Amino acid sequence: MNTEKLYTLSEKADKILQSDIQTKDLKKITEEVKTIINENPNGYIGIAQINPRLGDLKYNSKKIGKYISYATSIGLDTLIFPELSLVGYPLEDTIKRHPIIVKESIKWLNELARLTKETTTIVGFIEPDTEREKYYNSLAIMKNGTIMSTVRKSVIPAFSSFNDNKYFTPASEENKNFTINHTKYNLTINEECYSDKIISIEGSTNPLTNIDENNTDILVNCSAIPTNTHNLYFVETTLSNFSKNHSIYSILVNQVGSIDNISFQGSSKVFDKNGKLLARAKEFEEHLLIVNPTKNIGKIYPSSESDTKKEFSLDYEDILEKTYKTVIQGIKDYFNKNGIKRACLGLSGGLDSTVCAVLLVDALGKENVFGISMPSKITSNESRSDAEILAKNLNINYVEMPIKEIVKTTKDVFKELFSKVEQKWDYRYKKSFTTDNIQARTRAMYLWGISNEFESCIPIATSDKSEAYMGYATINGDMSGGFAPIADITKTKLFALARWLNKNRTEKNVIPDTVIKKRPGAELAIDERTGKPLIAEDALMPYEFLDEAIWRLENKHESYNEMLTSKFIYETTHTITIEEKKEWLNKFFKRKSNALYKGSIMPPSVTIDSLGINKYNYKQPITSSHINYKEINEAEIKDTLKNCIIQ
Amino acid sequence: MNTEKLYTLSEKADKILQSDIQTKDLKKITEEVKTIINENPNGYIGIAQINPRLGDLKYNSKKIGKYISYATSIGLDTLIFPELSLVGYPLEDTIKRHPIIVKESIKWLNELARLTKETTTIVGFIEPDTEREKYYNSLAIMKNGTIMSTVRKSVIPAFSSFNDNKYFTPASEENKNFTINHTKYNLTINEECYSDKIISIEGSTNPLTNIDENNTDILVNCSAIPTNTHNLYFVETTLSNFSKNHSIYSILVNQVGSIDNISFQGSSKVFDKNGKLLARAKEFEEHLLIVNPTKNIGKIYPSSESDTKKEFSLDYEDILEKTYKTVIQGIKDYFNKNGIKRACLGLSGGLDSTVCAVLLVDALGKENVFGISMPSKITSNESRSDAEILAKNLNINYVEMPIKEIVKTTKDVFKELFSKVEQKWDYRYKKSFTTDNIQARTRAMYLWGISNEFESCIPIATSDKSEAYMGYATINGDMSGGFAPIADITKTKLFALARWLNKNRTEKNVIPDTVIKKRPGAELAIDERTGKPLIAEDALMPYEFLDEAIWRLENKHESYNEMLTSKFIYETTHTITIEEKKEWLNKFFKRKSNALYKGSIMPPSVTIDSLGINKYNYKQPITSSHINYKEINEAEIKDTLKNCIIQ
Repeated sequence: MNTEKLYTLSEKADKILQSDIQTKDLKKITEEVKTIINENPNGYIGIAQINPRLGDLKYNSKKIGKYISYATSIGLDTLIFPELSLVGYPLEDTIKRHPIIVKESIKWLNELARLTKETTTIVGFIEPDTEREKYYNSLAIMKNGTIMSTVRKSVIPAFSSFNDNKYFTPASEENKNFTINHTKYNLTINEECYSDKIISIEGSTNPLTNIDENNTDILVNCSAIPTNTHNLYFVETTLSNFSKNHSIYSILVNQVGSIDNISFQGSSKVFDKNGKLLARAKEFEEHLLIVNPTKNIGKIYPSSESDTKKEFSLDYEDILEKTYKTVIQGIKDYFNKNGIKRACLGLSGGLDSTVCAVLLVDALGKENVFGISMPSKITSNESRSDAEILAKNLNINYVEMPIKEIVKTTKDVFKELFSKVEQKWDYRYKKSFTTDNIQARTRAMYLWGISNEFESCIPIATSDKSEAYMGYATINGDMSGGFAPIADITKTKLFALARWLNKNRTEKNVIPDTVIKKRPGAELAIDERTGKPLIAEDALMPYEFLDEAIWRLENKHESYNEMLTSKFIYETTHTITIEEKKEWLNKFFKRKSNALYKGSIMPPSVTIDSLGINKYNYKQPITSSHINYKEINEAEIKDTLKNCIIQ
Repeated sequence: MNTEKLYTLSEKADKILQSDIQTKDLKKITEEVKTIINENPNGYIGIAQINPRLGDLKYNSKKIGKYISYATSIGLDTLIFPELSLVGYPLEDTIKRHPIIVKESIKWLNELARLTKETTTIVGFIEPDTEREKYYNSLAIMKNGTIMSTVRKSVIPAFSSFNDNKYFTPASEENKNFTINHTKYNLTINEECYSDKIISIEGSTNPLTNIDENNTDILVNCSAIPTNTHNLYFVETTLSNFSKNHSIYSILVNQVGSIDNISFQGSSKVFDKNGKLLARAKEFEEHLLIVNPTKNIGKIYPSSESDTKKEFSLDYEDILEKTYKTVIQGIKDYFNKNGIKRACLGLSGGLDSTVCAVLLVDALGKENVFGISMPSKITSNESRSDAEILAKNLNINYVEMPIKEIVKTTKDVFKELFSKVEQKWDYRYKKSFTTDNIQARTRAMYLWGISNEFESCIPIATSDKSEAYMGYATINGDMSGGFAPIADITKTKLFALARWLNKNRTEKNVIPDTVIKKRPGAELAIDERTGKPLIAEDALMPYEFLDEAIWRLENKHESYNEMLTSKFIYETTHTITIEEKKEWLNKFFKRKSNALYKGSIMPPSVTIDSLGINKYNYKQPITSSHINYKEINEAEIKDTLKNCIIQ
């Protein structure tokens, strides 16, 4: 058995199957793979780790159809697709709003079934439950031109971010076994494997406990598990343990690709009877992985997985590759799936725009990225030169276009406008951010201008997560754009990512050292104390402290008082007073509260961590600005309520 | 019994209880009310229809404490607050992110219990279920200084927009009866009354079926039911029928007030033993309604309720008052609860900004509204004069400040910018919206400038629902603002509202007739065909048609083909060809798909209808642009899939 050749050929076939052309090469590869398989036939399974487009039935069906035809040609026993792969996932309210999609998808499914021959094909689809105007999350088992049967998901969790439980009905327990060439399969869908590991669902038991191990050779789990959750880990652990304890094989078929802020990484897996990893599909790539568990045939492709951290650390080294791949896929799929080709962004010479530019080049190709340097009076020569050097290093399209004219005209007009308003409104600030913001907004005006004037190009919002949490970004300014690639990456992690990019990309050191070494600042205002452009950390707090506060809030849900008691890493390396810590924590909670509004109008971004300040992940009403995150003692409560009593 | 005097005094007491001052007047009113009640004591119930602030435990507790003290002083038997009134509702992920709030709220609840004497007080609160890291949605029954018991909600629906089921555990059935002065109460919470009317919840039965009618005199339902759903109607119908069928009294205690886009209208109700309405609290106002069902004492305050329409109609007359009240409360509470005092908006002389200005005046007071007329070259004299007349009629702060200087400078700079970009990118449009958008963005720049320069003032986004659905608004332009009051009101409804405002406000006819009569257009571009400013309907489709298409999509979930078959009202009054209808429907579905991105960055608005294009209500991924809303025939499917087969 020439396993190496099997996988070399498979990778070639992948490339052709993913493209839109039918070539003679595929015919040739088909013959070669078939020959290898025929040396020792039976038991071959194709894990079709596909990247569907939401609701694009034609696109998805063509893809599925091609895989069916290929799998049949090379003689696979079984071909398995991810959960809901025919329509795509997540759906949110899409099918509630547009039930036509479900009706149409059944037409496509029936025709796909007709394509099947002896290869048993399993496809995730939405099964309408017409009586109750609800739907099942189902798998169709197709063979010899027909849908032989379907199995329905029995566990629809309430904890899903995608509100699956609003439109999917959990099925009652049913037989999920079927036999192909004497191999007995048991089919499960996503949370059916691990629901009890996360949150107990009222009235539901883990369906795995009902599996008859004497009647099962291979346990299959079809899934669409977002990358930013721990659920992939839960499924894998469960499958591996189940395999070991019951001496059966198990297979995870996971979706790949991104939709809006949500990413799926693929990394489909096969475990042997000892619970040992036998095969792992590529990550962040569409991929048909051919395996034969009973014959011990599989390939383990590289993985960037790492353990979830239980404590905050400023050492990000082991998670940067996955972060990078998630963002790249997020950008690629947002652009491709929405038919957008190009991006323009402001290059300030600062860390945020620099890292964004590199990521955009890797996702879209340098010819599709336009960097605009838009210096103002405050912009230092170093920043200008850093922007230019970066553009040269990346070899992207680049122009410098100062903003001073529009800023000057705007300031002049504003002088008159404000003096008119002031005559009627006595509320003018002594000191304001107006001029700072004119600069940021003029830059956004340039970028949206380019977007309006040039075909298929959107501006990039370069805000990072630390700044987003603090609302330290200008509305209609740097916050504005068609996509925000790094809005879920904190500043300290971004510094680490910049170093990682310099080291790990094919073209080394594209990011100038000065960008990584200087302390970040928006260069919108002069710090009166130093006479130099304001440094962000001086206006906020040290990023190392801020990023740990964000981590503690997101992962440990710590309150003000708990953070005050917790020892921050920053405190182990710097001496700070309790007053300083209180000031920073007060600022942190206050600014975070006020940032909810800005988070609500942030463009779509890529979710990296399980939580984030944007509207997709942080579902806290904006109107919650009076929440007191501090503890209050009973004497104060008593005192407050005393005044309520009518005397 | 002097019922009339009881309610006159109650209204006076309301005013004082809602303010922050303790006055001697309340003492006097207390004595007078007490005297009336003592004429024929026992059985008096206070329905405390309050407007809590989310997570503001001090504010909410003070309010609750004052009502407890007042109720005790006047000698009520029972005082009942809405569902979750101690912490506020909806919560979304707030308590998951900040569990401190629950811990703190228990401290406040314990101290509130100490305030109670002989008046049994029922307060909605979050009861922690520490073992499972989940919570119960509970009512505390407090009397004589302690919490006597709690009852927990047993039905946590999956259909809620607020994801209650993610953090609330449904309680098992339990005894919810208690007796006060020989009157037997049965307590229920919100969906416990009507869950089976909406969607069947797996494994749950309607708890009402378990109520022992022989052991119940009064059925109570504590709720927080959003105004834009049909649920208020369901609860009321259920209670009324239950009263009639079982010959018991029933009471609904509903929350009032708005939070972000969600509104609660109050309208708490009492039904007698025949199911007849005995009392109804004020709507859209905080209110303590005193009733005595067994003695037939109650008052029915006016209501703007009307039947939900089963078919689309261009006659909005019967729903305008409620629409108006919902928007006014929405603006008021967004501003008040977030500590914002003032609003500025562009006055174009068009319908949208005109109606927004009137609504803002009614919600915030004329002194807090600043109208800026920002004419460009294209702005007609009539528009300028309409803006000025409106400002005069409303007596608001007003300046005119042309935008031509910034627009001119920007156009000049853009000429250079684009010619530089063009040298590297060969994708320049022949015809673009760039100049149109410069105007809209310059206006937004003015408004955000004022917001930055003047204390506590936010700009208003004046987009309406018809335009939002069509993405017919400029990013960082008219779409931009701190709040969008009319983003869920379609254009035809807005015309009706303008007429209604002219007729029903104290100051009649503030909106110039010309504003209501002219055909809307953004005045950003000249229509080449007419030489006059472009009319929106010419660029889109007739608003009467568009608004019906929106209604059909939201209420009947019709597909392209279904709409094509449906007879639109517009078709009964105008002759249109099938080609025209197809063109409009194509445009409708295509623009709606593309508008999802704009909807995702829209500022908070007031939800009026059950659905809307903004991110709060329209949870469809942006990346769904390839969805085909049309039906496809099987021949085409077969044809497409034929090409998948490897030849």
